[in-house]
Amino acid sequence: MITSGANAKVKQAVQWRDKARERRDAGIFLTEGFKLFQEAPGETVREVYLTPEALEKVKGDSGLYRKLQDVGYETVTQEVFRKMSDTGTPQGILCVVTRPSYSWEQLSGGGDPLFVVLESIQDPGNLGTIFRTAEGAGVSGVILGGETVDLFSPKAVRATMGSVFRVPFWEAEDLPRTLGALKEQGVRVYAAHLSGKEYDKSFDFRTGTAFLIGNEGNGLRRETAAQADGLLRIPMEGKVESLNAAVAASILMYEAHRQRHG
Amino acid sequence: MITSGANAKVKQAVQWRDKARERRDAGIFLTEGFKLFQEAPGETVREVYLTPEALEKVKGDSGLYRKLQDVGYETVTQEVFRKMSDTGTPQGILCVVTRPSYSWEQLSGGGDPLFVVLESIQDPGNLGTIFRTAEGAGVSGVILGGETVDLFSPKAVRATMGSVFRVPFWEAEDLPRTLGALKEQGVRVYAAHLSGKEYDKSFDFRTGTAFLIGNEGNGLRRETAAQADGLLRIPMEGKVESLNAAVAASILMYEAHRQRHG
Repeated sequence: MITSGANAKVKQAVQWRDKARERRDAGIFLTEGFKLFQEAPGETVREVYLTPEALEKVKGDSGLYRKLQDVGYETVTQEVFRKMSDTGTPQGILCVVTRPSYSWEQLSGGGDPLFVVLESIQDPGNLGTIFRTAEGAGVSGVILGGETVDLFSPKAVRATMGSVFRVPFWEAEDLPRTLGALKEQGVRVYAAHLSGKEYDKSFDFRTGTAFLIGNEGNGLRRETAAQADGLLRIPMEGKVESLNAAVAASILMYEAHRQRHG
Repeated sequence: MITSGANAKVKQAVQWRDKARERRDAGIFLTEGFKLFQEAPGETVREVYLTPEALEKVKGDSGLYRKLQDVGYETVTQEVFRKMSDTGTPQGILCVVTRPSYSWEQLSGGGDPLFVVLESIQDPGNLGTIFRTAEGAGVSGVILGGETVDLFSPKAVRATMGSVFRVPFWEAEDLPRTLGALKEQGVRVYAAHLSGKEYDKSFDFRTGTAFLIGNEGNGLRRETAAQADGLLRIPMEGKVESLNAAVAASILMYEAHRQRHG
């Protein structure tokens, strides 16, 4: 049992929690809570830290306990766990997990793919929520462009509710080039934009489609919107000027889902 | 200019920021930022506090400055403002605003109303986001039931982006009774529920409709779901078990909007 916050592994975990760069260099991210331990593919789990109380809880679920024994674990005191945790009310179980990564072919391989392309999404909760909805809507992949916040920050990972393990994504260092590649593959790129045309029955999202979603405060950069095949606007009543970015993305993803499966 | 955090008005504002009960007893709530000052109906603004820097900014907008002069204001130092503010990067303008309130008739008066009924939504960001989307989707009113978090908490107000001033709402102290009243008026109540029927073309949301949305972690209470005319499930691909509460509400509200206007 680790009883000291000065333990090297604890200090390393705190570094990984707080520093995107160190997480990236190590090729890992952290998850907290029972649900994310359960959803993490066993072969990706490198380290597990848990309190004696959390261990007892895992022992109550034979499948989960077998997984824990397979991947190995260390117990830590509640005080040490609080030091490692990113949450106010920690569940007492934290994993160090290998990052998933995907080739461009994995993302765009299937017929009639559906993409969400994000430019400079700043709120980790919004980013995680978009991943969660993307899995639900059957999206082929999420493209992270501009200055989009780190998908592997603890808050974003938590908001994905496990979809971070399953939704293919692509970190676009050169967003114009990535959009060009999508268009070359015949994917129609629609920019969610306040000066766009309100979408209606004439928009067909059943063939290869990408939705471009911009920053929460400033929307899409002009150059980025200009690359789209069309601008579309979610209809809005009242005096609403825009919708929350995760909500706008979700409405569009589910409109595509409805057209494809409805 | 107020220069001391010990000033009685400053201390009162801090109390109102932090204590739902005191806000309620005074019949007010607080807003921060230029956008919410702009959107607050002038006759509801009781007090405005702003830094000299924010005052200069308001003076740059003649309409906004006229409003400020009409409602009256006091300047406070940046240090005092930081004490009053709920945000990490304050914009330097805070208002004390009279709460809106609505009669049942105002909510349910029109033909074919559309309602969102919330049971024990716990996240103020989700609650505010639901109000913002509700205005966009043309919802008639939002019903706040169960242990739903205070709509007038600073974080919820912020997330509404001004819709708090415009979307009618009803605080249902007795949710079963309120649901009964809706049903008596011919409103069909659909509970968003994981064991519901996936909605498809057979669901018609064009006549009076209410969507019941439950708590983020636990969903709807069984007794509440049992009162609904039907359970419906947003279709979900992959291994997603549920969607974020604000996202689920938004998808349903916009599906109704699509059916009514599409």
